[in-house]
Amino acid sequence: MQALKDRLARITDLNHAAAILEWDQETYMPEGAEISRARQVATLRSFAHELLVDEQTTTLLESAKPESEIDQDLIRITKKDLVKATKVPSSLIARMAEASGRSKSAWQKARHTGNFDTFAPHLEKIVDLTIEHAEALGYKDSPYDALLDQYEEGMTTAQVAEVFGRLRDNLVPIVQKIATFPAISDQVLRGYFPEETQWSFGLDAVQQLGYDLHCGRQDRSTHPFSTAFSITDVRITTRTDPHFFSPGFFGSLHEAGHAMYEQGIDLALEGTPLADGTSLGIHESQSRLWENLIGRSLPFWKHYFPIAQKQFPDALKGVDLNTFYRAANTVAPSLIRVEADEVTYNLHIMLRFELEQEMIAGTIRIKDLPEAWNDRMESWLGIRPTNYSEGVLQDIHWSLGAIGYFPTYALGNLMSTQLFDAAKKAIPDLDELTAKGEFSELLSWLRKNVHQYGRRRSSDEILRGATGSGLSEDSWLKYVDAKFGEVYGF
Amino acid sequence: MQALKDRLARITDLNHAAAILEWDQETYMPEGAEISRARQVATLRSFAHELLVDEQTTTLLESAKPESEIDQDLIRITKKDLVKATKVPSSLIARMAEASGRSKSAWQKARHTGNFDTFAPHLEKIVDLTIEHAEALGYKDSPYDALLDQYEEGMTTAQVAEVFGRLRDNLVPIVQKIATFPAISDQVLRGYFPEETQWSFGLDAVQQLGYDLHCGRQDRSTHPFSTAFSITDVRITTRTDPHFFSPGFFGSLHEAGHAMYEQGIDLALEGTPLADGTSLGIHESQSRLWENLIGRSLPFWKHYFPIAQKQFPDALKGVDLNTFYRAANTVAPSLIRVEADEVTYNLHIMLRFELEQEMIAGTIRIKDLPEAWNDRMESWLGIRPTNYSEGVLQDIHWSLGAIGYFPTYALGNLMSTQLFDAAKKAIPDLDELTAKGEFSELLSWLRKNVHQYGRRRSSDEILRGATGSGLSEDSWLKYVDAKFGEVYGF
Repeated sequence: MQALKDRLARITDLNHAAAILEWDQETYMPEGAEISRARQVATLRSFAHELLVDEQTTTLLESAKPESEIDQDLIRITKKDLVKATKVPSSLIARMAEASGRSKSAWQKARHTGNFDTFAPHLEKIVDLTIEHAEALGYKDSPYDALLDQYEEGMTTAQVAEVFGRLRDNLVPIVQKIATFPAISDQVLRGYFPEETQWSFGLDAVQQLGYDLHCGRQDRSTHPFSTAFSITDVRITTRTDPHFFSPGFFGSLHEAGHAMYEQGIDLALEGTPLADGTSLGIHESQSRLWENLIGRSLPFWKHYFPIAQKQFPDALKGVDLNTFYRAANTVAPSLIRVEADEVTYNLHIMLRFELEQEMIAGTIRIKDLPEAWNDRMESWLGIRPTNYSEGVLQDIHWSLGAIGYFPTYALGNLMSTQLFDAAKKAIPDLDELTAKGEFSELLSWLRKNVHQYGRRRSSDEILRGATGSGLSEDSWLKYVDAKFGEVYGF
Repeated sequence: MQALKDRLARITDLNHAAAILEWDQETYMPEGAEISRARQVATLRSFAHELLVDEQTTTLLESAKPESEIDQDLIRITKKDLVKATKVPSSLIARMAEASGRSKSAWQKARHTGNFDTFAPHLEKIVDLTIEHAEALGYKDSPYDALLDQYEEGMTTAQVAEVFGRLRDNLVPIVQKIATFPAISDQVLRGYFPEETQWSFGLDAVQQLGYDLHCGRQDRSTHPFSTAFSITDVRITTRTDPHFFSPGFFGSLHEAGHAMYEQGIDLALEGTPLADGTSLGIHESQSRLWENLIGRSLPFWKHYFPIAQKQFPDALKGVDLNTFYRAANTVAPSLIRVEADEVTYNLHIMLRFELEQEMIAGTIRIKDLPEAWNDRMESWLGIRPTNYSEGVLQDIHWSLGAIGYFPTYALGNLMSTQLFDAAKKAIPDLDELTAKGEFSELLSWLRKNVHQYGRRRSSDEILRGATGSGLSEDSWLKYVDAKFGEVYGF
């Protein structure tokens, strides 16, 4: 057992070292290092892979005598990882890495010019390889199941489609109803917010939520992200816009939500592959819970608005709490997913989920994708992109071969309210605590019911254990209806 | 040959990844990550070691068909590395790592309290292990040869002792002579120098010297250092003191000197073990050349003093060039090596060199070390520490087992003036160029004669190739006599 643990610790170290190199790449690395850094990361990742699939790992897995439940879980999960890792031939991995490298560059150019045709052959190649990948991984019903399973283990396409179907049927009317009400202005968020003050205000807030800087830090990067190098080193990045308060502040809350999840994993799992989030959906449930259910709530701003007013006296002079709160919760159909509000966001995801399935099933031709995108945007959100950069070309994911990833964003949203409802039941005065800037009870509840397990429990087990039931769109729809009914007055 | 290169590239990647993790540890890593980071670095280093000593490397080295002179050098140097790596049993490496871990903590406490007795048993252990290490490495004349050879390959104790003997005989009288002249005040360097201005002033200066930020960057750390992750990613760190101009500025110049060496290595060596400095002595010659021979020269300040005056108007108001220049070149015996001036610095080194040899030869008992230190300080520099923290406990090196390292600091000083003399011959108007802030000709000369070779040439070959002769103290003594004769007026 100890030999197995030592081996897994080395694999974990290699993967974490790669993550450190990638973090540096996005934060501090000088431009000239691009080529050498790509090689270094590839070397570390391939060592980790080789060490996992080496027959010695199998021998150890077969002979190890578990001495605890953690040991049992370690063996169980590692066996699963190993099966997955051996299913995909390394030649396919290499071909995918090469194709996605080229495809990413082509996508960057295409997004810049808005010309989808130059990207199309690359996307075709990516889709072909992704299907090959799905076949290698294996599946029961459809190749898309295999893709989804990479990011949200155990979830099936049929299950997601069913939930998303009901979600869309209920959500589109809500969006349409909101559109009949007078638009809410977010002008108060678009004054001048000095970046240094945004930085310290945001950093103070995430610490108050419970993000531990003794085991973390915040840096700047073009695209905000969260990354873990150990349970005691989980970092976030952010970006600020001096003329718009939201991206910096809510982005920090979002990333801190991810990071608190990883900081909350049982320290007994340190140095093992169990010390990681169990699925992207559960991960996203944590970021969205802190960003939206706490961070965009009225109780939260009851506490933070007076502080914000002191820190940003110019921008928030004469503004009242309600105006600010409503500005942070405007709902308006928009073209760009990462800028979408809480309500319309899931529609952006469902659009991608449908198109991904059609691409993999071969029921849509790649060249027809841009207009199919625009048509669906128009029918669901009532607006139509005027160029493909604001449409099908906006996301990096497909260019990297990350097909099956998008649904987890919406799954995270649904799970976030399910978990939040359960937390509210357990902490009846949660709103009052939030209004006092006290978050430790909520964080403790999340640690106990979600964080501590790492990968020991699946996303379904986490959800059922914490809430008593599996994935459902009900809770989120009720939340949206109640909150935005109040904001818009319906 | 290609298979050998691929293997060496992977080893290089692992070592560079470890260096990135160590850089992060000194600059940005949150405190909580200490334990996990130590394990991650150890994992990467041990993988690199295992891959090197694996029999597959030997097979490739024996069968590889070199296709160029670089290939030949790669095989030659890797064979040497491999012999060294296999000589030392991994059990000894592990014991040394463990002992130095404990010893470092004990040293930190001892330096804090000034109590040598608590550190002595650790140092005894370190010395025993170091002797064992030297025996494992093998040597011709004395175990100290083996230690020295780790840092300055090819240099022998006898050779260093001979050069240092003559150096001391000539240097002690110079120091004594200077002491008879009126002390020069460095008060003008001890005004208020805002740290942000120091940062930008220093960074502008090192870029002007030729340090390329496209392939490098500067960060803050407690102890300044330079580190390379590839030829295109060579970083420096610095620290600033708002009430003392020198440590920040001259420290940046020093580290940039190291970094420009690594940035100047032939790009054809990228990803191989040849892309590294050839010895610590040559490395230090580059840092000291830019720090002292350029950075503390009158021509340099002819150009930079007016700029400094504009940037630090409060501290440098009414100060004239000559006063500033003399302040940057005060000579006064002092107790702490890292604060020592250009002239007395080498005496600090020679003191350590002598004591190290006696420790390894067993001709001094560890418990007698502190007073032996103080006695020698008094006889050579005329001052005596009043506590051991300012004496034998001041440096970290011995606690880490880095015995044989110190001499390279003085060797670097001697080499720096030898190389600088040769550069001056090749660039007759070097002083005039320096006074105009133009350094590209000097940097080109250093690239051509020193940097480009990486480890392809030994330090002796570099020195002879660039200057026509081997290591000697002559040039440095002449430089000191001329410069400080002028500064002090003898």
